Amino acid sequence: MTPSFDIDMSVRDYELDLQGIVNNATYLNYFEHARHMCLQRLGFDFARMHESGVEPVVSEINVRYRRSLRSGDLFTVKTSITRDGVLRFVFDQHIVVQPHGEVAAEALVTAVFLSNGRPSRPPAAVVEAIGG
Amino acid sequence: MTPSFDIDMSVRDYELDLQGIVNNATYLNYFEHARHMCLQRLGFDFARMHESGVEPVVSEINVRYRRSLRSGDLFTVKTSITRDGVLRFVFDQHIVVQPHGEVAAEALVTAVFLSNGRPSRPPAAVVEAIGG
Amino acid sequence: MTPSFDIDMSVRDYELDLQGIVNNATYLNYFEHARHMCLQRLGFDFARMHESGVEPVVSEINVRYRRSLRSGDLFTVKTSITRDGVLRFVFDQHIVVQPHGEVAAEALVTAVFLSNGRPSRPPAAVVEAIGG
Amino acid sequence: MTPSFDIDMSVRDYELDLQGIVNNATYLNYFEHARHMCLQRLGFDFARMHESGVEPVVSEINVRYRRSLRSGDLFTVKTSITRDGVLRFVFDQHIVVQPHGEVAAEALVTAVFLSNGRPSRPPAAVVEAIGG
Repeated sequence: MTPSFDIDMSVRDYELDLQGIVNNATYLNYFEHARHMCLQRLGFDFARMHESGVEPVVSEINVRYRRSLRSGDLFTVKTSITRDGVLRFVFDQHIVVQPHGEVAAEALVTAVFLSNGRPSRPPAAVVEAIGG
Repeated sequence: MTPSFDIDMSVRDYELDLQGIVNNATYLNYFEHARHMCLQRLGFDFARMHESGVEPVVSEINVRYRRSLRSGDLFTVKTSITRDGVLRFVFDQHIVVQPHGEVAAEALVTAVFLSNGRPSRPPAAVVEAIGG
Repeated sequence: MTPSFDIDMSVRDYELDLQGIVNNATYLNYFEHARHMCLQRLGFDFARMHESGVEPVVSEINVRYRRSLRSGDLFTVKTSITRDGVLRFVFDQHIVVQPHGEVAAEALVTAVFLSNGRPSRPPAAVVEAIGG
Repeated sequence: MTPSFDIDMSVRDYELDLQGIVNNATYLNYFEHARHMCLQRLGFDFARMHESGVEPVVSEINVRYRRSLRSGDLFTVKTSITRDGVLRFVFDQHIVVQPHGEVAAEALVTAVFLSNGRPSRPPAAVVEAIGG
């Protein structure tokens, strides 16, 4: 497992729904943004991967929502990565509200690499960076 | 379990991401819309529930993505509901691509009712409609 | 000007914001979806245009919001197209709430075709379909 | 006119569309977030305004898109406010790409205050803060 990669974000009011809380789908936006920032810090650029034709796609997501995010909330998304078999990576992610550290949500996100639309071994550089 | 409630939808191009496929978070929008339509058919209005102060919130989501949705795809979201213990409901949902019926994604979505921010027994009418 | 192309849509609850009304940005999603459906009926496919390297992009948008859209609203997006000079098209769009026909919003959307990132003459087939 | 209020943001990959550029509707999200941050710095909280029953809504938006925003772009949203008559405020907003300062988009956004759904004079504190 990689060490945790942390990114600070804040709720934007347009992400709130009728209930005055961040909509459940928006947490997936936050998690995705954190994964891309994490890959970027490891040296990988999502847009360039797409152009190369070998790119990760999400195959499974499990999210537990523990505390609603509201207008003005500041939070940290924590991400670590492990390899799962030959083809899959699992991102372990948490949203932690600042400054008191309550967990707003936790997620396990499984990704596979596709090459021309078919599951394929991830690029060697990715495996090495994550620590297979 | 309630019988399956089906709703037909189609991909809108603004829901596509850089990869040319519907973004993973958008599936949660589809699933939510289908749940609200399902509740509506059972006689419940989400906006009115919110005003009454007793309303369902999502506590857990598990999604398996099986086939990417693309521009022009027509699909059906199938939803059925079961009760899980005293406090929770589980929505079993599938996205089925038309006309050939491939499953694009399947989800289990757990919801609890909150009353003034605390988990509470769901309204009796809801329990009765779903068949507790 | 082309005749008006109409498409029926309905508000989805995840499009509502804290104020209980459809967020102002979401109207642009509705208008875009209607433009793409309009182009499709004229024989053009947005995803395929993108692959061909010659594609329309929005250069200017003017929207007047007249009546808020709310949960449960059914509406029609009306779209007609005119050519504006050699390089630009203008889409004249209205959102009309059913069944009483109040105008929720009206928009003028200007689009230009880009070829390899530069403004270019629109494909002859497009000009002919719209009626230059 | 208030002095310019600046906020730094960056493109998140989920905001990109099929064309690999930020979708036109997402610019309205950026502009809205900057307006709320601006109001907050002036001492007003959007969520609390909503609860008080007197709140601003957008009545008109004019956006010129000058340069597409792409993956990895860092930008500043600049916002200043002027009063327009008794009932309206106009936000003059620019998105400026860093570090070279190209203008990606410019917008004029008109807002009115609603009290119980009807246009009303803005609260005196708001008028004073903006400098009527």
